[in-house]
Amino acid sequence: MDKQHLVIFDTTLRDGEQSPGASMTKEEKLRVAKALEKLRVDVIEAGFAVSSPGDFEAVKSIAETVKDSTVCSLARTTHLDLERAAEALKKANSGRIHTFIATSPIHMKYKLQMTPDQVVEQAVSAVKLARNMIGDVEFSLEDASRSEFDFMCRIIEQVINAGAGTINLPDTVGYGFPEEYAETVGKLIETIPNADKAIFSVHCHNDLGLAVSNSLAAVMKGARQVECTINGLGERAGNAALEEVVMAVRTRKDIFPVETRIDTTQIVPTSRLVSSITGFPVQPNKAIVGANAFAHESGIHQDGVLKFRETYEIMRAQDVGWSTNKIVLGKLSGRAAFSARLEELGIQFESKADLNEAFVRFKELADKKREIYDEDLQALVSEIQVGETTGEQITLGDLEVISKTGQAPHAELTLNFKGENYRSTAEGDGPVDAVFKAIEKLTKSEAELKLYLVNAVTEGTDSQGEVTVRLEKGGRIVNGQGADTDILVASARAYLNALNLLESPDRLHPQLGGV
Amino acid sequence: MDKQHLVIFDTTLRDGEQSPGASMTKEEKLRVAKALEKLRVDVIEAGFAVSSPGDFEAVKSIAETVKDSTVCSLARTTHLDLERAAEALKKANSGRIHTFIATSPIHMKYKLQMTPDQVVEQAVSAVKLARNMIGDVEFSLEDASRSEFDFMCRIIEQVINAGAGTINLPDTVGYGFPEEYAETVGKLIETIPNADKAIFSVHCHNDLGLAVSNSLAAVMKGARQVECTINGLGERAGNAALEEVVMAVRTRKDIFPVETRIDTTQIVPTSRLVSSITGFPVQPNKAIVGANAFAHESGIHQDGVLKFRETYEIMRAQDVGWSTNKIVLGKLSGRAAFSARLEELGIQFESKADLNEAFVRFKELADKKREIYDEDLQALVSEIQVGETTGEQITLGDLEVISKTGQAPHAELTLNFKGENYRSTAEGDGPVDAVFKAIEKLTKSEAELKLYLVNAVTEGTDSQGEVTVRLEKGGRIVNGQGADTDILVASARAYLNALNLLESPDRLHPQLGGV
Repeated sequence: MDKQHLVIFDTTLRDGEQSPGASMTKEEKLRVAKALEKLRVDVIEAGFAVSSPGDFEAVKSIAETVKDSTVCSLARTTHLDLERAAEALKKANSGRIHTFIATSPIHMKYKLQMTPDQVVEQAVSAVKLARNMIGDVEFSLEDASRSEFDFMCRIIEQVINAGAGTINLPDTVGYGFPEEYAETVGKLIETIPNADKAIFSVHCHNDLGLAVSNSLAAVMKGARQVECTINGLGERAGNAALEEVVMAVRTRKDIFPVETRIDTTQIVPTSRLVSSITGFPVQPNKAIVGANAFAHESGIHQDGVLKFRETYEIMRAQDVGWSTNKIVLGKLSGRAAFSARLEELGIQFESKADLNEAFVRFKELADKKREIYDEDLQALVSEIQVGETTGEQITLGDLEVISKTGQAPHAELTLNFKGENYRSTAEGDGPVDAVFKAIEKLTKSEAELKLYLVNAVTEGTDSQGEVTVRLEKGGRIVNGQGADTDILVASARAYLNALNLLESPDRLHPQLGGV
Repeated sequence: MDKQHLVIFDTTLRDGEQSPGASMTKEEKLRVAKALEKLRVDVIEAGFAVSSPGDFEAVKSIAETVKDSTVCSLARTTHLDLERAAEALKKANSGRIHTFIATSPIHMKYKLQMTPDQVVEQAVSAVKLARNMIGDVEFSLEDASRSEFDFMCRIIEQVINAGAGTINLPDTVGYGFPEEYAETVGKLIETIPNADKAIFSVHCHNDLGLAVSNSLAAVMKGARQVECTINGLGERAGNAALEEVVMAVRTRKDIFPVETRIDTTQIVPTSRLVSSITGFPVQPNKAIVGANAFAHESGIHQDGVLKFRETYEIMRAQDVGWSTNKIVLGKLSGRAAFSARLEELGIQFESKADLNEAFVRFKELADKKREIYDEDLQALVSEIQVGETTGEQITLGDLEVISKTGQAPHAELTLNFKGENYRSTAEGDGPVDAVFKAIEKLTKSEAELKLYLVNAVTEGTDSQGEVTVRLEKGGRIVNGQGADTDILVASARAYLNALNLLESPDRLHPQLGGV
């Protein structure tokens, strides 16, 4: 069977980043984008350029950096939206504008407050406008799965005539059921006279756990683009998981008429990167990328595996990038080995100073920890790159914590800001609480702690703890990360990281004077 | 449309517990079983009675306790397996033996090393034997999705004649694709002459992310039992998630010809219980039970939600047991309120002493933490009930930790064992490492640390840290839990909990003498 190409459109940086708590800095987005390029996704949806100056900058810098994938920005149908998207994509090797409008009766009536005719007109003029700005335009019918068939035929035919090369049919509320949803997609492709002029795409949400199967069922009926995210990130229950879509198509090549160009060995590293940056853990029992996905526990199955591997395994762990040999560096590794490994991991620093800082941290870590794994490097770099983003930072100097049964834990610490040291002490309900209170005494941020999470980066008691701290203030949510073999130091760094992201450090007021 | 009943068969305690790292103690299994009964699942697969004395005891005690759900034990087709299952289920209000044998060519040849005729014969005699022991027998064709159709027809017809009331068709390796898998299930039901004498069941694995949709597609073709687990727990990438199956059937009642008897408001509490006991986190973007499943972040969507709730919501958070009002107890709550709330949470203690200990811990906690949530109680109880299981325990006395930048963190602690105190000090790479090393100095367990995980139980800096410690020794894996507002105390408790589970405390040797 001659396979057709299935376009993998990754929206981790747009729909994924819209999840509460998953927001990323520009530098983090750039790292994810580079990983996606290495994974060989066809299209990277880098953001929603008009939505904020930060998003605009992120799309722009990704468009300037990524060469091998198309870079895309979302845009509503307004002139401003389209213009900002085009502007951000100007330097892209291959750029795409993705514009959308809702087409279901319920959305048109209550959200848009427009008539169907107005919606068609708006869509057509937006696509034309976009095509004047860029060669590659995608049009989405928001809430397609609850839209009327005849109306969809009408609007799709017209936007294809107006120049849309991709037509996307989102199951916005995750209500679709595979048979039914795919049937609609197939019937649209059959019915619309100029359907062969465009690629039909699906974008499914996972509210009922059906995002992947809805997407795959539609592929069987002619869809040739799937919109998906790493780890199934995305609003509410998320989007279709890229890793599941790709591996289903690959593993069941006997039934799928398509193939992707994904380098599947990059799946697990990309999954870890996204998990580490967002602080969203991956369940051990998550398909493909969960820690247990390729583990076989029960005696019966182990016996089966030994007798004949194929009895229980349908994929090989190494095909998706699980590698058993993860030790990379140790105490004696030099700067060259360190830089080379970072390069292999797709990590670049913007300045020599940051690379130097990373190397110093690496040497400190290697003093405390015998074996340095890729995960350790990712954790170390996450922290330093979070530091890059805001220029002037509040950083941790000394930290001393005493915790004794029957007494309130006590923390004493120094923060550095613009070359000055500030000292603070506090008691707390626990040592971490005491550390956070000591920082708060100086900075008076009044941010609310929404999440505190510690993961041991690798196994063993000398592992680093990677701490994620999520703070909220005035509706803004940020994640801070810190890693250290000392969990209290990691916690302090994560908290400061989050604070530095949350506000301009000048607005944080170290109060107690220098020491 | 007159709905037929869909049997929900939960195998969290059997297939779920087989996941590496998810093993539970008898008391924990009992708590989960009670929660499943409250959730109103039809069948609880409680374990695999012959596999170990522990599993036997767990099945037995669940069979003696649960009244409203059928309690089931797995058994191979051997006489011993069936006998042990029947013995464990003797006192069940309603008991089921679930026996299985592989039917795919690859499994028969390489794993069983039996001819197809031998497999049929073995299956039939096992079902007959089981029916002599108990009224309700289920038969599974292991690796059904890779078995030959004609052979399946033959064996199924014969085991139904032999008395099997349920025929289960597992997609053991998670290879099935919905259309194809459901087609096979439907064709079997149509073809087998006595198919109407049994309920057809599906059991799908999630290796390609398709477990739920495979199950639901089969329901459309006549399956009337779905085997599933809370949070999709299970070997490798897990089983079909109960919460997704149930809510898909309920939300899409317009297309499903079936209904369940599940009390959906118990879904989230049960999910949290299982997550807390196993230490398997639930991804924020997990459907139904993830923290973000009902959150709406992006401005556009929020606007839509405000204008008309139905534009983006297809389920209501409260229907699955998300509740915004979770504050239950505080400093002034007395023993009666405490006991009453535990009862509402389905928590029972085996002895008055344990209840007293829990109340003392609760009061200590309330001194440090203003608001006590259900999650705090679950965490507190998890720990005490882990303590129950092994009788004599090593417990934590005093703990003092000093952690100072530039110096190795130092821990000093006392362990209690059989009324004696033992003191130990150690330095480590971090304060947690120092604590673990101090414990190891006394106990010399030489267990390997496989996982160290901290979750803040609730939001805010005075939250308790719930620490999970996974230890491995000689192939045995155990999870220990500890919760405290002091993360170091919680870590020490979790480590001791795991040690107490891992070996008889008498084999742990406190060496340094009393103080």
